[in-house]
Amino acid sequence: MAFTITCKAALLRTEGHPLIIETITVDPPQGSEVRVRVVSAGVCATDGHPVWGRETDVQLDTGGRPMVLGHEGAGVVESTGPAVTSVRPGDKVVIMWMPECGRCELCANPRTNHCLSGNIVTNMYHEGGQCRTHVDGQPVLMFFGTGTFAQYTVVREAQVAKVNPKANLNDICIIGCAVGTGYAGATNIAKVQRGSKCVVWGLGAIGLSTVLGCRDAGAAQIIGIDRNDYKGEIAKQLGCTRFINPKTTDKQIDDILKSEGGVDYAFDCIGSVDVIDSCLKSLHPWGLPPRGKTVNIPSSQLLGGAHVSGGYYGNAKPRALNQHLVDLHCTDRLPIEHMITQRLNLDDINKAFDDLKAGKAIRTVIVFD
Amino acid sequence: MAFTITCKAALLRTEGHPLIIETITVDPPQGSEVRVRVVSAGVCATDGHPVWGRETDVQLDTGGRPMVLGHEGAGVVESTGPAVTSVRPGDKVVIMWMPECGRCELCANPRTNHCLSGNIVTNMYHEGGQCRTHVDGQPVLMFFGTGTFAQYTVVREAQVAKVNPKANLNDICIIGCAVGTGYAGATNIAKVQRGSKCVVWGLGAIGLSTVLGCRDAGAAQIIGIDRNDYKGEIAKQLGCTRFINPKTTDKQIDDILKSEGGVDYAFDCIGSVDVIDSCLKSLHPWGLPPRGKTVNIPSSQLLGGAHVSGGYYGNAKPRALNQHLVDLHCTDRLPIEHMITQRLNLDDINKAFDDLKAGKAIRTVIVFD
Repeated sequence: MAFTITCKAALLRTEGHPLIIETITVDPPQGSEVRVRVVSAGVCATDGHPVWGRETDVQLDTGGRPMVLGHEGAGVVESTGPAVTSVRPGDKVVIMWMPECGRCELCANPRTNHCLSGNIVTNMYHEGGQCRTHVDGQPVLMFFGTGTFAQYTVVREAQVAKVNPKANLNDICIIGCAVGTGYAGATNIAKVQRGSKCVVWGLGAIGLSTVLGCRDAGAAQIIGIDRNDYKGEIAKQLGCTRFINPKTTDKQIDDILKSEGGVDYAFDCIGSVDVIDSCLKSLHPWGLPPRGKTVNIPSSQLLGGAHVSGGYYGNAKPRALNQHLVDLHCTDRLPIEHMITQRLNLDDINKAFDDLKAGKAIRTVIVFD
Repeated sequence: MAFTITCKAALLRTEGHPLIIETITVDPPQGSEVRVRVVSAGVCATDGHPVWGRETDVQLDTGGRPMVLGHEGAGVVESTGPAVTSVRPGDKVVIMWMPECGRCELCANPRTNHCLSGNIVTNMYHEGGQCRTHVDGQPVLMFFGTGTFAQYTVVREAQVAKVNPKANLNDICIIGCAVGTGYAGATNIAKVQRGSKCVVWGLGAIGLSTVLGCRDAGAAQIIGIDRNDYKGEIAKQLGCTRFINPKTTDKQIDDILKSEGGVDYAFDCIGSVDVIDSCLKSLHPWGLPPRGKTVNIPSSQLLGGAHVSGGYYGNAKPRALNQHLVDLHCTDRLPIEHMITQRLNLDDINKAFDDLKAGKAIRTVIVFD
């Protein structure tokens, strides 16, 4: 039986102002929508920016309508729209601000976690451009399509994950954003290797989750950096082996780390290009010292999932790589002879340079008698 | 029986001038050195820069001494110093400009292919600061410690790889630099995935080897870019599925690629920050469009092996990650409750934002009745 629920929510009425607790109505879910009784919701700085009136990449065009913030949430499915197949009433779920429809070309692509089912920044409306939530009969928008600062919310099926029925719903809300971001940042993006040395800048929930990811990946050393000592204490409980508060030293943190040989992995868990710069400076000083030209990467592109990498000789141990490639060539699986466009005697070596400069040769090979 | 060999070499006498073919003497190898009869040597642009007098990151401080260029080479071990253990006279070897001593801390570190046994840029002298090669009794330096533009060369054991005795020594010299760099750039740095779409900028020997690496990794589409049509023809023989000559179109290549949905992997095989910029622009336009701040990375640091990556929610498929992390939490292996520093009722949500802004809370969780 479809019925409208009346409950409480925290509404953003005006950017830059505190939220207001009001009574809302939440209509039954339609189509692929799921109505969830929210049991817990995490409060993240991304929710804070509109409350504080800070400008961010999250552009809200609310048209003056009130909005329910909140993009971390855990709860129980209350009812489902007729097209929903993956969850049933009574299922425990984590609400995901990042959708996964499971049917689009991006969901099918193992190289990204983006999904065409919605704009990840603002999915403020429900199916058909409608709103299931109202206050005083007026539509209420949903931040990120999740709006977890309410006792009930309607989200698309693409934005719920059915989870273990033993889950503690009072804790797991934060897995939907902070914990997954930091943990998989270490284990999935960086792919931290056993025995390595890591530094984590910023020990908020994302940074602490990064510490957990580094720990589970078997890092030998995990150095946490934060301006609050109490965060360092928690970090140590979670696996951090050393804590540095920048306020307690006159030195630059990256100088300290580099003087000790540098780190294998450096994580910016603050969201600052200055910290990213410090991360780069704290890495092992392998190869050439920083000089010459600079590669400029829009931070939004890194955030979108781009990887930028380089290395001498394919960053591979050279002896094994040579032996492997020669073996491939011996069994006719590496036709490198196609790129040898001429063979010259040593006496004619200057022709090789002339042709190379003129673009007339790919590889000239000098053959000795 | 240790004896000095008299043979021919191409000497760089003056930067910016052609090489001169001269008669040199090559002393017996000492310590961990290996004397190699060079059978073939590849000619790379890195050898060309000093010949052409171009300024590069390779700083040569020769003190006016002649030098044997050449850093790709294949040959047969002629004799070995008393400390050599990995090769014997008669062994076929590839000469490696990149050393691997196998004993230092970097060689033991799986995350880098650098080696403390030598400066990868200029290892111009032999053990003890001596020179094994002379011309008219005067010392001759070795470019990269390899000096393969000579009939015989003395290199350190760290710079030879014993290879398959069936190897064709006339071809495999180029494996020591170009082929390994491009092939492992695709398979080891980028870790190209099966079914993916790749673009390779520049179809010299490194670019063509990148094409081979992409092909062997199972790429579905490999797009080659070069200003020379004949290189495109060779690229197609090696697995390139499409060739674009920038001279034949008024459009920007990255615009073309982006209008077709973008690529999964983009390789700069030219060594140009402008091409790296085009590579970035040709990637799938996932996430936010380029805007906001820029991350500046010294190109030398990328070359040294740095990886710079980012992503939303750890770049992981969100549903599976949520389920996995909840499972870990259910079995007490993910103590996320340590980062929940307070729990508040919805009515007190504005305290959560105040505490977050003041740095007094890590994660506040709103608990509903």
